[in-house]
Amino acid sequence: MRSSNYLLATLKETPSDAEIVSHQLMMRAGMVRKVASGLYTWTPTGLRVLRNVERIVREEMEAAGAIETLMPMVQPADLWQESGRWQDYGPELLRLQDRNQRDFVLGPTHEEVISELVRKEVSSYKQLPLNLFQIQTKFRDEIRPRFGVMRSREFIMKDAYSFHIDEASLEQTYQVMFKAYQTIFSRLGLDFRPVIADTGSIGGNLSHEFHVLAESGEDAIAFSDSSDYAANVELAEAIPSKDKADPATATMEEVETPNAKTIQALVEQFGLAIEKTAKTLIVHGVNENGDASGLIALMVRGDHELNDIKASKLPQVASPLTFANDDEIRAAVGAGPGSLGPVGLPLPMVVDREVAVMSDFAAGSNKDGYHYLNINWGRDVELPAVADLRNVKAGDPSPCGKGTLDIKRGIEVGHIFQLGTKYSDMMKVGVLTESGKHQNLLMGCYGIGVSRIVAAAIEQNNDANGIIWPEAMAPFEVCILPMNMHKSARVQEVAERLYEECKGAGLNVLFDDRKERPGVMFADIELIGIPHVIVVGERNLDEGMIELKNRRSGDKEKVAIADVVQQLTATNNR
Amino acid sequence: MRSSNYLLATLKETPSDAEIVSHQLMMRAGMVRKVASGLYTWTPTGLRVLRNVERIVREEMEAAGAIETLMPMVQPADLWQESGRWQDYGPELLRLQDRNQRDFVLGPTHEEVISELVRKEVSSYKQLPLNLFQIQTKFRDEIRPRFGVMRSREFIMKDAYSFHIDEASLEQTYQVMFKAYQTIFSRLGLDFRPVIADTGSIGGNLSHEFHVLAESGEDAIAFSDSSDYAANVELAEAIPSKDKADPATATMEEVETPNAKTIQALVEQFGLAIEKTAKTLIVHGVNENGDASGLIALMVRGDHELNDIKASKLPQVASPLTFANDDEIRAAVGAGPGSLGPVGLPLPMVVDREVAVMSDFAAGSNKDGYHYLNINWGRDVELPAVADLRNVKAGDPSPCGKGTLDIKRGIEVGHIFQLGTKYSDMMKVGVLTESGKHQNLLMGCYGIGVSRIVAAAIEQNNDANGIIWPEAMAPFEVCILPMNMHKSARVQEVAERLYEECKGAGLNVLFDDRKERPGVMFADIELIGIPHVIVVGERNLDEGMIELKNRRSGDKEKVAIADVVQQLTATNNR
Repeated sequence: MRSSNYLLATLKETPSDAEIVSHQLMMRAGMVRKVASGLYTWTPTGLRVLRNVERIVREEMEAAGAIETLMPMVQPADLWQESGRWQDYGPELLRLQDRNQRDFVLGPTHEEVISELVRKEVSSYKQLPLNLFQIQTKFRDEIRPRFGVMRSREFIMKDAYSFHIDEASLEQTYQVMFKAYQTIFSRLGLDFRPVIADTGSIGGNLSHEFHVLAESGEDAIAFSDSSDYAANVELAEAIPSKDKADPATATMEEVETPNAKTIQALVEQFGLAIEKTAKTLIVHGVNENGDASGLIALMVRGDHELNDIKASKLPQVASPLTFANDDEIRAAVGAGPGSLGPVGLPLPMVVDREVAVMSDFAAGSNKDGYHYLNINWGRDVELPAVADLRNVKAGDPSPCGKGTLDIKRGIEVGHIFQLGTKYSDMMKVGVLTESGKHQNLLMGCYGIGVSRIVAAAIEQNNDANGIIWPEAMAPFEVCILPMNMHKSARVQEVAERLYEECKGAGLNVLFDDRKERPGVMFADIELIGIPHVIVVGERNLDEGMIELKNRRSGDKEKVAIADVVQQLTATNNR
Repeated sequence: MRSSNYLLATLKETPSDAEIVSHQLMMRAGMVRKVASGLYTWTPTGLRVLRNVERIVREEMEAAGAIETLMPMVQPADLWQESGRWQDYGPELLRLQDRNQRDFVLGPTHEEVISELVRKEVSSYKQLPLNLFQIQTKFRDEIRPRFGVMRSREFIMKDAYSFHIDEASLEQTYQVMFKAYQTIFSRLGLDFRPVIADTGSIGGNLSHEFHVLAESGEDAIAFSDSSDYAANVELAEAIPSKDKADPATATMEEVETPNAKTIQALVEQFGLAIEKTAKTLIVHGVNENGDASGLIALMVRGDHELNDIKASKLPQVASPLTFANDDEIRAAVGAGPGSLGPVGLPLPMVVDREVAVMSDFAAGSNKDGYHYLNINWGRDVELPAVADLRNVKAGDPSPCGKGTLDIKRGIEVGHIFQLGTKYSDMMKVGVLTESGKHQNLLMGCYGIGVSRIVAAAIEQNNDANGIIWPEAMAPFEVCILPMNMHKSARVQEVAERLYEECKGAGLNVLFDDRKERPGVMFADIELIGIPHVIVVGERNLDEGMIELKNRRSGDKEKVAIADVVQQLTATNNR
């Protein structure tokens, strides 16, 4: 491709509404343009990257035995009424009517449509397992579209749905998909982690997310420094630091703390280690029927954070988690939230595992302006119910038993689920088994955010000059950059010759034949992030050489004109 | 691909709602499944064909210098308000609102979005010409979706838009696109014709349609037997059979015709040649301000058809063409529609060119139950205004001056337009010219109905057993069909070996490894239309041979096992 016949569309200025680096660079490098909130046109450079991602995803899905289909974006409401999602799905589901006032949705996912297909086309266990995928345009009416294609409304997703006669078959395909996802993200050249995930509202049993690691990630991920273990912090199990509490060494003592409304203030007043303090949080509870039933106290160590998801999963706690307000706390306890503690608390209580092994610790005395020091379980107050209630933190022992946890931020680019029979029960997707009985199928579903990968890759691969593409994703593998070509017939001749050679060798090459100053051309090409740049200049031509510049390392080397294409194809790992 | 790991989804019965052969065969061959009216899932076999069409379209568009982009399906209403199409486009434009009650459309085409892109990204004549394309999902809320993917609501289109500083540049790109379209349809293996077309409501100057010739086509196409001339019958110019009327040979005579309400009855009563009769049709007229202004008579030869489009383009005729009813005719003329003619008609009249050169002809006398025989212009009545008013018919002289016209039916699969400045004037898409002035751009637009091509190809290529794919479009190029493989280890071994060989040679191969009777397998493979079938059977194996069957010719030949893959790759013209 010649720049003069192409739409580079690079920008010098960063658009003011681009908050994160991938959005800024995708705008500046001419990859996308905003059409409306959450709606983007993929301009030529961006689309070339998107197609590379699609190609690798498609190849690996096919290699893993999945079969490609293409389902419509506009879906009839009756299928969604059948699955129950017409009612359950919030306003992110865009509902619309056709010219005959019939109801439709713009598909955010395709469980209903694929279930309808499979229940009609598959009648025997002999046709199973079956794994169908598509790479297709989805729509979710996000309340706050942002970060460019990272969280847009119209986007491209690879979604796959597998169907099985039994758990063993589902488990097997799930493992095949797990491996295929590892291969896909490895081939794309991304630093990623598969992470144990919450199954959330989509239901089902087992689920993994695949995260691209990047500072700007919305999710915190905990992973072991000594094993494959990784989990969303929301889900990672917190292991207590010891088996049981140390013996008490001091007598419990009530102290006046008129200014200690926070753990930090308490620590400062008495010179305590924060690990010797505990905080008490009051939330709304439920009885065994799930009805509201007064307040519950939850307790974590002073330096720990309550994990909302873990807390809301407790049977005695209302879900979603709802904190009591000051008035409710004062009415129930007779003290404000800054003076709460386990001794004499007139509420049921659940303490975190780590709290259960504390000794000689400080907490409020349920009297405004007072705390107890040197509380010990058993001696001063009975140990209440114990549960895993806190977020893990860096340095915690890994729940897999090997090593300690590190925490990094990640961008979710893939998600695989074992759905079980959630949809097939609702929509009656079944077959005749070997013994002639009707049985509803088990389903798995497997998503990859194809367009989001492009942004995630940039978050992970950039510097002050622009994008640094992993080779497999790059819009062009090579750029030929002639210096002042319009003043030198020799530069032009060599540049044109190398351009033809690159094309002949099957390389995706951009020939920057614009009449621009070298500085402008270098800036654009580095911004776009092309991995290899062949700089053709008068000075090196005297020696029969060009300069080959590597975008990632910044290394420059002189290479003989005759060798350069050979050298590039030899190292090309597209 | 092994059948056992695939979703063949063939049907024995033709679905009752499939009216045309392509729809029937696409259902039976397991290519598409209906999700709702005009909405289809492309099942694996259909999608493989669709992807082949996409690939060829993409390759040739790129070879022709067009650059790929991807625009959103959901488009903001404000762009459509700017172009005027928000008001002008009928209910085929699906309008919808997002969660914030903002108006959007599902894009039926993308003139507005591309114009918005180009006016922001292109500022100088130096960036022109520019030709941007996409292969993308469109939506048109058809009042009567039918014929499967031939006229569906959600469909895949290749749309390209070019931008130019002057007419010469537009003309040049138009010619490049014209040639690219010829290459695309040739590579797809289709019998097609480029046809001069009406620019219709999309506006602009010059336009060609590309039609796949097939009996079931919705459009009639006239083309010369001696030149490249081809035009939609709606537009083909009708040339009169002679320069001027022959001299009169008989006296005009009024005859009683109480039962001759039609031309056919008149011909039979008097034993006339139908070419010696003329019929008079009464329509509503307009004055020079375009306001309604009474009735107008139009006259064509008895065996000719009035061409509505030509008639409605007359300045004195209301557009769209509206016929007067019996009461209106009787009020204006004093006779019913079965007895009208030029002599004594109290209405303005326009006659077809062919009528103007008739002599001694018969027509009504504007008195119920009477006609005149032997009317001659000049002698019996003044010749009124003359215009091209009729449809051409087979055997007419070609308007190009060479040969005579033949008429065939066609399916429109491509359409190219010179739009001129229609959109760029409305949306202010301009650049600075070389002399520093602002100038709005000329536009071309170029569409291909990618999903419709699949159906059109089947309309043109089928027999009683099913589809006969052109090789370039076939879902698989080769099928390996082992006879009773599960009873013969030797058959299985050779079939497996050939399967691996085919894959190694880069052939798209289906290995039909189902435990089905050979008859069932043959029927499915012929229905799906795979061009080459390798039949592996015990009998031929004794001689070291397999049977190679050609789907199109039906020819069978014995080929040595060692030679078959070599032979297939040698003739493969994918």
